[in-house]
Amino acid sequence: MSSEEGSSRRHGLIIINTGNGKGKTTAALGTVFRALGQGFKVAMVQFIKGGWRYGELEAAEKFADFSLEPMGHGFLKLGDAEPAREDCELAEKTWARCAEKILSDEYDLVVCDEVNYALSYGLLKVETVLATLARKPARVHVILTGRDAPAELIEAADLVTEMREIKHPYQKGIKAQRGIEF
Amino acid sequence: MSSEEGSSRRHGLIIINTGNGKGKTTAALGTVFRALGQGFKVAMVQFIKGGWRYGELEAAEKFADFSLEPMGHGFLKLGDAEPAREDCELAEKTWARCAEKILSDEYDLVVCDEVNYALSYGLLKVETVLATLARKPARVHVILTGRDAPAELIEAADLVTEMREIKHPYQKGIKAQRGIEF
Repeated sequence: MSSEEGSSRRHGLIIINTGNGKGKTTAALGTVFRALGQGFKVAMVQFIKGGWRYGELEAAEKFADFSLEPMGHGFLKLGDAEPAREDCELAEKTWARCAEKILSDEYDLVVCDEVNYALSYGLLKVETVLATLARKPARVHVILTGRDAPAELIEAADLVTEMREIKHPYQKGIKAQRGIEF
Repeated sequence: MSSEEGSSRRHGLIIINTGNGKGKTTAALGTVFRALGQGFKVAMVQFIKGGWRYGELEAAEKFADFSLEPMGHGFLKLGDAEPAREDCELAEKTWARCAEKILSDEYDLVVCDEVNYALSYGLLKVETVLATLARKPARVHVILTGRDAPAELIEAADLVTEMREIKHPYQKGIKAQRGIEF
């Protein structure tokens, strides 16, 4: 508190983009590029492979200070079934990678893309995520994306936005558009 | 309809990012970078100067196919007063620039950033915007951002997302963070 005007002015935010609409990962991507433009060092770890595609990967290659790690599977169709042990292990391994990036204090921003998916499907425990966030270096910003963010995570966050679907092209029978939606 | 599998497969979307939360312009920025990564040509016209700042501008310079034009003032404080004639003229001029970009058919994606602000404050007529959109080349994607998108515009759109504020760092007394929020 004594050096509010000094180097400790940076308050690393815990940011959640959730909801059933578009724009959760896309807004994270926008923040990544804004941060890179400011000279920040950024890491992104993906819980769902394929959630980011060619467009992002091509654009990401222009920036030396951006590390992108796709760790997960594609989307799982879990229904009511218990999640398979190997899926839980992969989700835990992916969070361990997020935790490593966050706790290293080497990055200004760490994006844990679709982590809420892993949480809401019971692949990962919210306590595991909260335990890491509680140890987060003060200056590090963290973005957690995906629908159905658990209440405990929202409680721990500083900035939470719900992206709500009002209208979707599927409703008109229009296919997903390359370069826009992926 | 006869060449659905041919070049006409591209269906240029009219996309609206609205609502009181963060992420409207940021998600547009994410889409811009995704599109650039896919080799698209992108134009962005800003109705509010300063809505995009150093981070975006620095990042944008890495891409030859991205044209960014800040046209507007900063945010106006209008209250209940009638908008000033010069503000209306500037908004109309800014839309004319958007229309030029959209109708030129030279861009794959045109972002009209904060146009909804101009519409909701009565600086610009929704009919003016709808008339341009009705003449939009089929392959061109358009993103319209800003809170309070008018119902007629939502009616004309293909993809509409509302960004809702659930929790904001202001509530904890935390200042806006450079590189993240601007």
